[in-house]
Amino acid sequence: MIAEKLESESDAILAANAQDMSAAKAAGISDAIQDRLLLTPARLAAIANDVRRVCQLADPVGNIIDGSTLDSGLNLQRRRVPLGVIGVIYEARPNVTIDVATLCLKTGNATILRGGKETVHTNQAMVTVIQQALELCGLPAAAVQSIDDPDRALVAELLKLDRYVDMIIPRGGAGLHQLCRERSTIPVITGGIGVCHTFVDRGMEFASALTIIENAKTQRPSTCNTLETLLVDRAIAALFLPELSERMAGAGVTLHATPEAFSLLQGLPAAVVPLEIGNLDDEWLSLDLNVVIVEGLDDAISHIRTHGTGHSDAILTRSIANAERFVHSVDSAAVYVNASTRFTDGGEFGLGAEVAVSTQKLHARGPMGLEALTTYKWIGYGDDLIRR
Amino acid sequence: MIAEKLESESDAILAANAQDMSAAKAAGISDAIQDRLLLTPARLAAIANDVRRVCQLADPVGNIIDGSTLDSGLNLQRRRVPLGVIGVIYEARPNVTIDVATLCLKTGNATILRGGKETVHTNQAMVTVIQQALELCGLPAAAVQSIDDPDRALVAELLKLDRYVDMIIPRGGAGLHQLCRERSTIPVITGGIGVCHTFVDRGMEFASALTIIENAKTQRPSTCNTLETLLVDRAIAALFLPELSERMAGAGVTLHATPEAFSLLQGLPAAVVPLEIGNLDDEWLSLDLNVVIVEGLDDAISHIRTHGTGHSDAILTRSIANAERFVHSVDSAAVYVNASTRFTDGGEFGLGAEVAVSTQKLHARGPMGLEALTTYKWIGYGDDLIRR
Repeated sequence: MIAEKLESESDAILAANAQDMSAAKAAGISDAIQDRLLLTPARLAAIANDVRRVCQLADPVGNIIDGSTLDSGLNLQRRRVPLGVIGVIYEARPNVTIDVATLCLKTGNATILRGGKETVHTNQAMVTVIQQALELCGLPAAAVQSIDDPDRALVAELLKLDRYVDMIIPRGGAGLHQLCRERSTIPVITGGIGVCHTFVDRGMEFASALTIIENAKTQRPSTCNTLETLLVDRAIAALFLPELSERMAGAGVTLHATPEAFSLLQGLPAAVVPLEIGNLDDEWLSLDLNVVIVEGLDDAISHIRTHGTGHSDAILTRSIANAERFVHSVDSAAVYVNASTRFTDGGEFGLGAEVAVSTQKLHARGPMGLEALTTYKWIGYGDDLIRR
Repeated sequence: MIAEKLESESDAILAANAQDMSAAKAAGISDAIQDRLLLTPARLAAIANDVRRVCQLADPVGNIIDGSTLDSGLNLQRRRVPLGVIGVIYEARPNVTIDVATLCLKTGNATILRGGKETVHTNQAMVTVIQQALELCGLPAAAVQSIDDPDRALVAELLKLDRYVDMIIPRGGAGLHQLCRERSTIPVITGGIGVCHTFVDRGMEFASALTIIENAKTQRPSTCNTLETLLVDRAIAALFLPELSERMAGAGVTLHATPEAFSLLQGLPAAVVPLEIGNLDDEWLSLDLNVVIVEGLDDAISHIRTHGTGHSDAILTRSIANAERFVHSVDSAAVYVNASTRFTDGGEFGLGAEVAVSTQKLHARGPMGLEALTTYKWIGYGDDLIRR
């Protein structure tokens, strides 16, 4: 019903989006953000199809996770139930509005949406469409609500409503996540920030390594699972870095190198600049790659502990022992052996949908599917049973 | 090793406890808290045996939760791993020190303990014993640490260490939970506060109902799963309340009744007083029981929504339809049909141990066993695999 309404009301939504777009142009907002903000008939059709895809997913609510009759005679089950009310705070991406609302509805949750101020008209039009669809289905329109007033104080208020709201999902930059962690009395799922590493171990075939590195860096550089820092074992650095430079030059990647790596990369095909302090702790989200020479596996693990964000990290190796030590020692949501960090994704992981990527450890870690929007309830059936 | 050390060092621990006890007496601390604080040789032996029991539990760490080879060729597993560092803030119960430390060690976590100031010497002695045992096993003593300085500012600092600490478990009153929710930038597991309800539906046999109610109220009144408010269907109130009064008089329970219930209970065997505002929203933790007459199932559910704490609630009924509607509509960690609320307990639920009882919905709900001290990590093995 939401998908159909999105299509039948597409003129109104596109008109609202045009209003946001002209305001964005007038405000001199960057082209990249304008592109995120823009809805076209094709993009809107894709969003409607995403809604249909969510409808097809299996609904985890009501599943009995486990259960048995205990010694006491209590017949105890754990049943999956909706979380309740989920607050989502996001930036200028109108597709998130529909995406989050439909995933929450699918799992029986109510949603409070707070989009970026740049996209307020588009969001209003979309939420109106969702609420109309809900009413047509006999569901309460208030199951999906949005906060349209751009006053930031309202976000601070939302974050304190722990009596009514069960979970907050921020989808945006590090600043938004930090704000939510500090201000919220409601549990917050933080994540989405990925300073992802790949370590090239001695003994790894260069050709394979280069193919994986190129994929991890360039397949879609603006994503959080993109490779940002390459760690190269000193034992192979002098031979490996020239081949890396050649491959990265072909892919248009600029290398940001530590002094030792810089001296090996200077004058070779790829653009190379000295690494600046802070580069190691930030996402590039562009065709830029940090290059660091490490002493070996332990040094690589220690580098990732210091600079990683617990998102996705990979080892490229032919040593089973090193692979397993890396897997055990790197405390990230996703850890890879001989694979691209780009795989960290709800769709790639077979979850059917992705609500967010969590880099915290409670409740859900890594790509969050529908199950992450649920909790469970213990249900005990007794035959007039008392505790002895 | 910890159990043996607790026994061999029992003199030192008991001497430290005696110090805390005399300070408590001098400070005029209540008998109830002094009793919690007191260690005897028998209590210490019981604590040591609890440690041995934890050693016997199955360790969830390393379990592969699920896994498969995806269409892309990625061999993906979810493996259970320790959370990392767990901060526990608790009040004057020396057994919690050993209990939490051993459950965390069992699951491969480091712990930062912050006990009540009344028990600082006992805790110091116990943590010393744990650290000695760790060193004897070749493990880092710092895996279990305690904050002994009574300065409350240190708690506020601990709650901001989200870079290093993965989870905070407060074990204490509502004020402590509120403080942690408001101040912590680390995910907090709140819970342990139980305003538990039992609803007696029309058609229920009185004798069975009274047995369950007596158990839920009196089996151990100081616990969080104790019945605090009884909801009685108006259709049976006039007949049921006199029998309730007789049974409760025998059990020494004082009834706190709404005006309508009061008029039916006055002059009957059990002590009865008018319900005061606020009684419905607080735990009694004593032989006191609120009695409220409701219109029927819907009114009972609505009462629980308004006054419940999401801990444990029960329906006593012979109607399958009402039982299922209660189970679906009451949003509590544990919901019972024809059973005592006293069953909400890690031991009773077969979890082997209980870290805390969560009344929030993220990560863990209800009694938390060892699994609640773990998270998972996605591990992807590829044969030099890239994302298409």
